[in-house]
Amino acid sequence: MLPRLAKRMEGLQSSEIREMLKLTEKPDMISLAGGLPLAEHLPVTELSAATREALGVHGEAALQYSPSEGVGVLRETLATRLRRAWRVRVEAAHILVTTGSQQGLDLIAKSYLDPGDVLLCESPTYIGALSAFRVLEPRIESVPTDDEGMLPDALAARLGRGDVRAIYVIPEFQNPSGRTWSVPRRRALLELARRHGALVIEDTPYRDLYFDAPPPSPLAALDPEAAVIQLGSFSKVLAPGLRLGWVGARPELLRPLVLVKQGADLHSSTLAQYQVAVYLERFDHEGRLAKLRATCSERASVLLAALESELGSLVRFTKPRGGLFTWGELPQELDARALLAHAVQEGVAFVPGAPFHPGGGGENTLRLCFATVPPERLELGVVRLRRALDRLLRSGGGKRPTPLEEAC
Amino acid sequence: MLPRLAKRMEGLQSSEIREMLKLTEKPDMISLAGGLPLAEHLPVTELSAATREALGVHGEAALQYSPSEGVGVLRETLATRLRRAWRVRVEAAHILVTTGSQQGLDLIAKSYLDPGDVLLCESPTYIGALSAFRVLEPRIESVPTDDEGMLPDALAARLGRGDVRAIYVIPEFQNPSGRTWSVPRRRALLELARRHGALVIEDTPYRDLYFDAPPPSPLAALDPEAAVIQLGSFSKVLAPGLRLGWVGARPELLRPLVLVKQGADLHSSTLAQYQVAVYLERFDHEGRLAKLRATCSERASVLLAALESELGSLVRFTKPRGGLFTWGELPQELDARALLAHAVQEGVAFVPGAPFHPGGGGENTLRLCFATVPPERLELGVVRLRRALDRLLRSGGGKRPTPLEEAC
Repeated sequence: MLPRLAKRMEGLQSSEIREMLKLTEKPDMISLAGGLPLAEHLPVTELSAATREALGVHGEAALQYSPSEGVGVLRETLATRLRRAWRVRVEAAHILVTTGSQQGLDLIAKSYLDPGDVLLCESPTYIGALSAFRVLEPRIESVPTDDEGMLPDALAARLGRGDVRAIYVIPEFQNPSGRTWSVPRRRALLELARRHGALVIEDTPYRDLYFDAPPPSPLAALDPEAAVIQLGSFSKVLAPGLRLGWVGARPELLRPLVLVKQGADLHSSTLAQYQVAVYLERFDHEGRLAKLRATCSERASVLLAALESELGSLVRFTKPRGGLFTWGELPQELDARALLAHAVQEGVAFVPGAPFHPGGGGENTLRLCFATVPPERLELGVVRLRRALDRLLRSGGGKRPTPLEEAC
Repeated sequence: MLPRLAKRMEGLQSSEIREMLKLTEKPDMISLAGGLPLAEHLPVTELSAATREALGVHGEAALQYSPSEGVGVLRETLATRLRRAWRVRVEAAHILVTTGSQQGLDLIAKSYLDPGDVLLCESPTYIGALSAFRVLEPRIESVPTDDEGMLPDALAARLGRGDVRAIYVIPEFQNPSGRTWSVPRRRALLELARRHGALVIEDTPYRDLYFDAPPPSPLAALDPEAAVIQLGSFSKVLAPGLRLGWVGARPELLRPLVLVKQGADLHSSTLAQYQVAVYLERFDHEGRLAKLRATCSERASVLLAALESELGSLVRFTKPRGGLFTWGELPQELDARALLAHAVQEGVAFVPGAPFHPGGGGENTLRLCFATVPPERLELGVVRLRRALDRLLRSGGGKRPTPLEEAC
């Protein structure tokens, strides 16, 4: 009855993940599963004032239809901010406002992917990107990746087959791995993509959430002439409920996105765009960001120290320098879903890593979010996680058969 | 370089229509081209107060991520309103909140259309629906239609071929034709769709904008057991800039839409949903609607009387009983695009009808919006339109060759 696509989406949107998020509502559950911004840093008062001003100044225009490209004042504000941050030419014509950066992924897929096209990504990668891309039925393949980014030799070999249309990467504080690409890997990616005519899709939702120092220049700024489409988001640094993000690229790369956006939702909320433009103009966004960074950084330190002391002998975790997540690898024979079952009984939740792997695998991996839980609860959460791991090891229930055992 | 879809979208999004809308900015231009709600009826003050209250009451929750299905309180409010209006069972589980009803079309296409599926529609029909549907590459065919809806015999014959997946209709005050389906035609459509297993997509953005009496029951209410997905919108009755609409259907029909919405934009603006929920609870929405209806009704009367007196001998116009539009048919040999060129010189703009015909044709048709122009300007606009038609007839320039002439 359901057509192809709906079937594919059902397969993709693992009910497991949805169930997982429900766990966060149980009393006394310490949830390291979410990816929410910190509630206490959401600028409720400021956005209330910004709304009053937006409606006072712009009146009916703030409630009317507006251009698919975005409201002029917000595009100008964004261009100015990006220009200052990256020291490259960015103008309003380079910006398309989107209904969250999730919509940017949907528009890029519709604009640049035909069914059967090859799309390369990291493994693990952001599940929501796979949801957006799969509407166009590309062949999604992952490229071997280490803590510095995709391995250039592997990328070159795959591109050499001549059929790659696009490469999707999250170069900073990646969801789910927390990893950040080094400058040499960034340059290698740009060089290889250019040589083989592949489009680079650069997703940057966590970019401004660095702990100690800003991450390396984004791909879009390292080579402004490259075929790079960058996605940006207000969700992690302002308020996800506004559903506002943007796509930045050369105007000729943006043009098809503007056309498909008309079919997708005509334009993003006019009022939300004025709200954010007024907010950025009137309030101390940089000051808020600094506090947000300090909070995330402190919590990351607490979580990573506790993980090292409680689980360091058994589980390897990434050491993120920003963002919301760290990523763990259990011993190869353990299953993170089985660990989760014990963890929930102990009162701690996380996200098992398998669904983040487009090509399968990763059953022994897990994602932890350190940003939404206060430090003392983080430490308790890790104690509970160790208890869960002890139970898993004792029960032997989560042990996956080795290939040899399976063959027997 | 561009993939299939982007090429298709370029073809569809006629630059003509975009140019048309720019005309409305010329000084002294009387634009009958738009489809905007009436600026003077937009509830600026009310929404400012509703925002303050939404952020005051719900705090951080109004700025956080929220369920893909929509915020509970808005879904409940919508269900209650629809239940009272239609006297059938409607619950929150029947409602999916969307980023404007345009997104509803996108989600339905992704959920229910596979490439090559046959989708039937009226001709003319809403251009934006075609934009949304074409992403999935269905075969779009139109069914012969008169002032009461699709002709049942023609619909039965087409459905009889057994390959129709879905039927898209705008049963009230249609964009662009202004027509409303009669009850017998509604029943015939439901009966035929059920017999042939076709999904009915019912688009109702103008439903509440009736002049004298409410339109017949919607398809979704005439037969609550039928496979009908209804689209609703706040754009024409509240504020298009909020980008909020909804899809109403039985939960099992909604389920795939919820999944694809996660890939499209995760969820619609949390803040906008609380804004509208508070607005509907606190302010006199019905009172505002009554004024809006009275204004639209008065303007429609003025425009239709002027069209009859100035152009009645040459052009046939529909007599809408609600909505924003009337639809004209010039003598068969005249081209509305040629008329527009003269009209712009005379200081009046409209939308030529050809692009609203998915199968081509309709070069002699045009859409006029009566809602956004004050009555005295409407009369002047029609005088200018008559002058433009006189010029067109004198010049002979817009005369299209008859098939015989073309053959010569």
